[in-house]
Amino acid sequence: MTDTRLPSPIASTVPFDRDGVHHGFLRLPYSRDDSAWGSIMIPLTVVRNGDGPTALLTGGNHGDEYEGPIVLFDLARTLAAEHVRGRVIIVPAMNYPAFQAATRTSPIDRGNMNRTFPGRPDGTVTEKIADYFQRTLLPMADIVLDFHSGGRTLDFIPFAAAHVLPDKAQEERSFAAVAAFGAPYALRMVEIDARGMYDSAAEEMGKIFVTTELGGGGTSSARTVSIARRGVLNVLRHAGIVPGPVEAAPTQWLDMPGDDSFLFAEQAGLLEPCVDLQAAVAAGQVLARIHTMDRTGAAPVELRARRDGILIARHFPGLVKPGDCVAVIGVPA
Amino acid sequence: MTDTRLPSPIASTVPFDRDGVHHGFLRLPYSRDDSAWGSIMIPLTVVRNGDGPTALLTGGNHGDEYEGPIVLFDLARTLAAEHVRGRVIIVPAMNYPAFQAATRTSPIDRGNMNRTFPGRPDGTVTEKIADYFQRTLLPMADIVLDFHSGGRTLDFIPFAAAHVLPDKAQEERSFAAVAAFGAPYALRMVEIDARGMYDSAAEEMGKIFVTTELGGGGTSSARTVSIARRGVLNVLRHAGIVPGPVEAAPTQWLDMPGDDSFLFAEQAGLLEPCVDLQAAVAAGQVLARIHTMDRTGAAPVELRARRDGILIARHFPGLVKPGDCVAVIGVPA
Amino acid sequence: MTDTRLPSPIASTVPFDRDGVHHGFLRLPYSRDDSAWGSIMIPLTVVRNGDGPTALLTGGNHGDEYEGPIVLFDLARTLAAEHVRGRVIIVPAMNYPAFQAATRTSPIDRGNMNRTFPGRPDGTVTEKIADYFQRTLLPMADIVLDFHSGGRTLDFIPFAAAHVLPDKAQEERSFAAVAAFGAPYALRMVEIDARGMYDSAAEEMGKIFVTTELGGGGTSSARTVSIARRGVLNVLRHAGIVPGPVEAAPTQWLDMPGDDSFLFAEQAGLLEPCVDLQAAVAAGQVLARIHTMDRTGAAPVELRARRDGILIARHFPGLVKPGDCVAVIGVPA
Amino acid sequence: MTDTRLPSPIASTVPFDRDGVHHGFLRLPYSRDDSAWGSIMIPLTVVRNGDGPTALLTGGNHGDEYEGPIVLFDLARTLAAEHVRGRVIIVPAMNYPAFQAATRTSPIDRGNMNRTFPGRPDGTVTEKIADYFQRTLLPMADIVLDFHSGGRTLDFIPFAAAHVLPDKAQEERSFAAVAAFGAPYALRMVEIDARGMYDSAAEEMGKIFVTTELGGGGTSSARTVSIARRGVLNVLRHAGIVPGPVEAAPTQWLDMPGDDSFLFAEQAGLLEPCVDLQAAVAAGQVLARIHTMDRTGAAPVELRARRDGILIARHFPGLVKPGDCVAVIGVPA
Amino acid sequence: MTDTRLPSPIASTVPFDRDGVHHGFLRLPYSRDDSAWGSIMIPLTVVRNGDGPTALLTGGNHGDEYEGPIVLFDLARTLAAEHVRGRVIIVPAMNYPAFQAATRTSPIDRGNMNRTFPGRPDGTVTEKIADYFQRTLLPMADIVLDFHSGGRTLDFIPFAAAHVLPDKAQEERSFAAVAAFGAPYALRMVEIDARGMYDSAAEEMGKIFVTTELGGGGTSSARTVSIARRGVLNVLRHAGIVPGPVEAAPTQWLDMPGDDSFLFAEQAGLLEPCVDLQAAVAAGQVLARIHTMDRTGAAPVELRARRDGILIARHFPGLVKPGDCVAVIGVPA
Amino acid sequence: MTDTRLPSPIASTVPFDRDGVHHGFLRLPYSRDDSAWGSIMIPLTVVRNGDGPTALLTGGNHGDEYEGPIVLFDLARTLAAEHVRGRVIIVPAMNYPAFQAATRTSPIDRGNMNRTFPGRPDGTVTEKIADYFQRTLLPMADIVLDFHSGGRTLDFIPFAAAHVLPDKAQEERSFAAVAAFGAPYALRMVEIDARGMYDSAAEEMGKIFVTTELGGGGTSSARTVSIARRGVLNVLRHAGIVPGPVEAAPTQWLDMPGDDSFLFAEQAGLLEPCVDLQAAVAAGQVLARIHTMDRTGAAPVELRARRDGILIARHFPGLVKPGDCVAVIGVPA
Repeated sequence: MTDTRLPSPIASTVPFDRDGVHHGFLRLPYSRDDSAWGSIMIPLTVVRNGDGPTALLTGGNHGDEYEGPIVLFDLARTLAAEHVRGRVIIVPAMNYPAFQAATRTSPIDRGNMNRTFPGRPDGTVTEKIADYFQRTLLPMADIVLDFHSGGRTLDFIPFAAAHVLPDKAQEERSFAAVAAFGAPYALRMVEIDARGMYDSAAEEMGKIFVTTELGGGGTSSARTVSIARRGVLNVLRHAGIVPGPVEAAPTQWLDMPGDDSFLFAEQAGLLEPCVDLQAAVAAGQVLARIHTMDRTGAAPVELRARRDGILIARHFPGLVKPGDCVAVIGVPA
Repeated sequence: MTDTRLPSPIASTVPFDRDGVHHGFLRLPYSRDDSAWGSIMIPLTVVRNGDGPTALLTGGNHGDEYEGPIVLFDLARTLAAEHVRGRVIIVPAMNYPAFQAATRTSPIDRGNMNRTFPGRPDGTVTEKIADYFQRTLLPMADIVLDFHSGGRTLDFIPFAAAHVLPDKAQEERSFAAVAAFGAPYALRMVEIDARGMYDSAAEEMGKIFVTTELGGGGTSSARTVSIARRGVLNVLRHAGIVPGPVEAAPTQWLDMPGDDSFLFAEQAGLLEPCVDLQAAVAAGQVLARIHTMDRTGAAPVELRARRDGILIARHFPGLVKPGDCVAVIGVPA
Repeated sequence: MTDTRLPSPIASTVPFDRDGVHHGFLRLPYSRDDSAWGSIMIPLTVVRNGDGPTALLTGGNHGDEYEGPIVLFDLARTLAAEHVRGRVIIVPAMNYPAFQAATRTSPIDRGNMNRTFPGRPDGTVTEKIADYFQRTLLPMADIVLDFHSGGRTLDFIPFAAAHVLPDKAQEERSFAAVAAFGAPYALRMVEIDARGMYDSAAEEMGKIFVTTELGGGGTSSARTVSIARRGVLNVLRHAGIVPGPVEAAPTQWLDMPGDDSFLFAEQAGLLEPCVDLQAAVAAGQVLARIHTMDRTGAAPVELRARRDGILIARHFPGLVKPGDCVAVIGVPA
Repeated sequence: MTDTRLPSPIASTVPFDRDGVHHGFLRLPYSRDDSAWGSIMIPLTVVRNGDGPTALLTGGNHGDEYEGPIVLFDLARTLAAEHVRGRVIIVPAMNYPAFQAATRTSPIDRGNMNRTFPGRPDGTVTEKIADYFQRTLLPMADIVLDFHSGGRTLDFIPFAAAHVLPDKAQEERSFAAVAAFGAPYALRMVEIDARGMYDSAAEEMGKIFVTTELGGGGTSSARTVSIARRGVLNVLRHAGIVPGPVEAAPTQWLDMPGDDSFLFAEQAGLLEPCVDLQAAVAAGQVLARIHTMDRTGAAPVELRARRDGILIARHFPGLVKPGDCVAVIGVPA
Repeated sequence: MTDTRLPSPIASTVPFDRDGVHHGFLRLPYSRDDSAWGSIMIPLTVVRNGDGPTALLTGGNHGDEYEGPIVLFDLARTLAAEHVRGRVIIVPAMNYPAFQAATRTSPIDRGNMNRTFPGRPDGTVTEKIADYFQRTLLPMADIVLDFHSGGRTLDFIPFAAAHVLPDKAQEERSFAAVAAFGAPYALRMVEIDARGMYDSAAEEMGKIFVTTELGGGGTSSARTVSIARRGVLNVLRHAGIVPGPVEAAPTQWLDMPGDDSFLFAEQAGLLEPCVDLQAAVAAGQVLARIHTMDRTGAAPVELRARRDGILIARHFPGLVKPGDCVAVIGVPA
Repeated sequence: MTDTRLPSPIASTVPFDRDGVHHGFLRLPYSRDDSAWGSIMIPLTVVRNGDGPTALLTGGNHGDEYEGPIVLFDLARTLAAEHVRGRVIIVPAMNYPAFQAATRTSPIDRGNMNRTFPGRPDGTVTEKIADYFQRTLLPMADIVLDFHSGGRTLDFIPFAAAHVLPDKAQEERSFAAVAAFGAPYALRMVEIDARGMYDSAAEEMGKIFVTTELGGGGTSSARTVSIARRGVLNVLRHAGIVPGPVEAAPTQWLDMPGDDSFLFAEQAGLLEPCVDLQAAVAAGQVLARIHTMDRTGAAPVELRARRDGILIARHFPGLVKPGDCVAVIGVPA
């Protein structure tokens, strides 16, 4: 059984409480076949200027989602201490081994960072990173912005989001930060199973937590990067860490879909999308078809919408497997 | 040394010269560890109705390109013999092992089908398939339509294309078929190194050869599938095989860019796209930046356009390696 | 530490308590690199007709054993509700990822299903499946029939079996069900280390539990499939779920061998079997020889029987490794 | 282009022309990542006693077939020079890397030895071995016995065989050697495509060539090993190399089936064998069924015999892929 | 949760309490895809001659360190019972699966044996081995000698070592045994994080524990093997188990360096060592340079010593990754 | 069949005939699954200053040998044009994919660069690189220096070498360059099988060709790097390209050993070196022992020297396989 009071094996090579811009690493010792006394070096920047709130900014929670890492590597390089009041902690690639491998989960332990909280100091590499966020970084933060996109296997319309929370004051502060982000869409999320999520870990500490889905497919675009760049600055402005007004942008609020908004494949095959993202769809409409791959002449299986709404997410790869989520429908608020 | 007069080991399970719709396989014996007397079964449909021209329609020349397979599996199922005058030979997934694996090249021999022609009857699996097209299928055809998209690692604006050819009459017939296809863009291609291409094999036999690039990223969309579906019918109508007029669609012609239209990465890193597909670009404009992944605080490398034009292709994955093609600029005709 | 009161993440797509034949899936969400919002879909059939006892029938506990899946996929398709009084729950491939991969253990987590009970709702994929059987399916059952064979690396004479149990009434009911099965052989098993077994999980709940070993080698035969088919119907008849008398078949009872019945290899090499399954053997007799593979001229190592009996199991692959079980001797009752 | 007059890089560590028993190796230099100056050491035994005919005995042409290696490692150890008149050259595992890996083909180059002849001295490892047999060992031989079984993916009734040959005197000598072998079955083979076979290489030099199929499944049995052991001695006696009369054994001759004797799968799935080896079958009879693996309730595909005869070979693994050979029917002579 | 009172699944095939030389195995049942009823057989020798102290000698704690296994396989073969008073238990390759694979950690579960103590009887293979040492072998021992070297990725000057301990009498006995070993260097180690170490497990039971680092690089040399051979005999003499005086050898004592003795890489690249092992170094001196691999013309990064001393360890492979330990400086006592 | 008059697909990004220092790449297009339009970028530096001789300097012919790449990356960065008369072409890592992977051969095609000459313009990646050297770079050179070391699996005493050649004037010029290099040892090599070597390709064009073996084990040392650094400058001075006198260093000349100088393993096992590099050895002396790994108590196999001399090379890894070269003996001239 784990003694969770063990210290974390991770050490930061930069200070968290000194003014200035500090580029460095979270150094996590990792002994392995190809390096007996090796470490994982997770890039980190701390920008501090006197007292004030702390924002914790993260990308690469999943290793194949790119808008977050792009704008956070860029922000870490360009944000001067004098731009800031308080502190900004930037970890552009949280699950760093996954980010290096361009995979959702860690190639070391197949850990899905967003299902690993609160982590363990004596667990796997992914668990050790989660534990460091749980016990060291999250407690320092007032506001947390965690960038996600769909990764290699999903594609999303670009939105920022926060959870419906039991503490309505905390929820209101979170939705206000989502609004400040200024993505084209904004989502009020109800999480059915929040076990192990970074989101929940932060929310249970009473933090303001903003997350996003800004595209997907294991790539990014000039458009989604610019949404992310504006969003992170807006959140810092909203939090009073960076001076100046939030840059306004039109946002469509969506409500969290229920179970009938998700379509899952029950067959393997070649996926034909019949509707693209952002389109309005009606219950009964064919959203996609699955073609048999091993012979010609066989009729495809049709997947039909089970409710009205707009298409907010879809399966990305050309082939599909049984159990894959093929489409998600959202409902304008 | 190969005796190219050896017969192909591939046999079709359906006839090519009988009227009606015939679904079957190209059966290629392939003895291996997991099947001593195994075969590769490449799906095939032949639709024939009396005399007339023959169209050879192919997808999956590269295994991770999906518009072609989707519309060809669909066409094979829905095209009735009475719709046709002459013959349509449909091979929805030419490099079938690659198509099953969702990879550009064959998982068996890493063969890139489009660099393998004329193939060999006693070579690798990919070479045997190429040889069968070279010596059996291509000679049957009057017009050849070979679907491509960008695959997992490239993304294209949707275009149909044919090559600038020494035989100007053949070239003119080919460009007419490209125009009939009716994609949003059309490209006059100059191939610098055409060794081993299916295109060249067909063109050297005097066939009309139309190819496409209809998107990419290892996925497809409702939009690109509809372009492909209209295109294949238009080409069959244009060839007089399917009755009725070509469905008109606006097309922007582009000229084949020279060497200064290609941008290659010289660094590995995180790729930030600064311009999206279809945008107009000017010489000197930053098209993309490459961020160092192993530390914060380092300046990104900028990749600048070397000529004016529009962005017609880009690197797709979020990470980039030295030598990868990052961007291609086309020039409106 | 696991809170075992967490709900299972697995949901059935079919009801357990409605009359009729219901084909569907146990859907287990499984987020991974190749499907961010993917699931494992374990095929399931529930056949119910009013009140009466419940039989739980399972194959594919190990993924490379085939008699069970063959007869259970077949039974699921052919068993009409009107044939039944009570309920039959059929899961033809319990460790479904292993079954798809044709391996004993799960390719996802290398989980050996039969050493994973009682499982965990927040554990690995195999642990989640075990937990669902432990807390959802087993409690519904009166009688449990779990098909095994030797898999790729062992071969068995065909037998049904049950455990010697502390509750002699339960034991008697179990042996009666074994007798009803009607395999050529029947075994009274004493399990030295029953930790983690599905058998023990069921027995500890007081269920009648019948298991089998019906062949092996990662294949099946017409003969062993027919034994399995008769056996499952006999067990359902014996339980009063399917009407009609048990189909009688001659059975030789065997007693559970002790430690001296097992022969283990201490050398790697080429295995020469000197006795085939079902043969009578005498203590001291050479059952197998191991030949050195890296040179000619070396004497083989002989493995000799340590007791009289008949050969009931043997190592299957042509090569052997130190520690492999080479032969097992059973004793006629 | 290969200059086939290059010398082979393979050297024998034992002499071929000195009397006595010589255990050693064919040493094939093989520079690779894990051994810059490494070699492959193929075990070899030469037993010679004065002038007389030479028999070349080989196993492991495919690396997962075991009756040959077992009896040849054993014969190499036990055959004394004084038992012999002439010479016996024994290579128990011809494709030695495949034999070590327990796979049909070489793990180094995926070479199928029996499709690699005449090989190349400057080719892959498998090609170098084939070239050594082609240019060094086969020319020394008068009679060649090459052991095969079905390997991991096929199972055969036990038979010895030779080819129908253009030279009827050579054919007659070959069939006489097959008869001497004394397997339960004997087959007159017509090879449709003999390119690359060891058999053809030997036959084209005018050698007597006997081959076998003695079981399969990647294992062996006491029964099939005893058939092989008797067979090799019978062939040596028949050739006059080992003294004494051939040990008679009842043999059923079979004729080489035509195309309608082979059944191939067109679906992937779970294979249910409906008939076992050696059984008589009638045209139209269901020999096997293929069950869908991804759902319950779907009807299986039936594979029916296309002619009368007996079942002489079958697919071995529990799962089947499109293109796999499922069954072969032979016809009693 | 683990009940640590479960018995170990490991059984010794030889007795620990009978006089004589006993060669055998620790047999650990390990069911897996390639052996359903397989085991891991860890070689073991017990030499006993009446009452007296027990020495437990181990190599292969990490699987790519060779001086220990060489001298312990040799000692196991050559140590006669009459040479001994008391008992010597020899396990030449503690993490046997790692030793077979020539890797630091186990190929089965990637377990680092020296971070796995106290292990678990129902855990992974590595945990089961650790548990057996923890609960069975260590309690039998009076003195423990565990051989290490640098493995594939580190190289060390040859030293024996023991830990600075809270119990100064135990510490003194341990340093006396280190002195007896007689390596060219001897180290007083302070372990910053001793969680999971075999060393700590033994020390917490009050045992005398001697460890070594005798070279590295995944190889050994005649020189380091001779140091190991003399060392093990000296320790047995020192313990009174083997008669005769310790063979004296000059030893330089070193003190355990602090954090400023370690140099870590922050860049990937080609490593140029500027100082060799055993050399004296001064603070500020360049110990190594890291050259960029992807382009010429870039300046290398210099790694400078942070304190005076001698170079006692270095990174071994030609390439280096961020986080790798590049150099360690020791301080003569 | 290859038309060797095809142009190479490789293009240099820098000019060969312009004065100054030019850092760039040999760009080799390489389409593959993870980059449809990708390239391999082989770093290259050309330093030119007016007319004069051309030296071609190469490392990384084998990808796990480091002295060459270290001093050549360093020289490329530090060599100013004004230091030079004539031209220096530097390719620090010839088999660049192998160098990146730290393996002897290319991870793409397993090509051993030094057995691939003259290569092919339409072959594998390794063949394309060889062809570019054969037809483009070698013809430009007057003197060629190609750095080797033992790589991961061999270790050498440090020497420079050239071949005994049919053209004695060419041989004399080559040995003079070897002498100028100034390594501790110098070797007159007789190549038994020179097929495919870079050495032969250069020598057949009449070039002066110097090679080295400067250590091994997949690492380097300050000592061997300094030998390489002095050597390359000495060769450039000797050639008149860099001004100033050759820096003298004591060199022991050795003669090329015959077959009896090589010792090969015939067993797998744990290798105990009994003699270290540079030691004098006598015929009959035990140079190494091979211990069985799978049991204690077995006698090791001894490998004895077959001639007098000094140990100039040895197997490096701790384990050995049948066919590995264990030791090489050289003879002082």
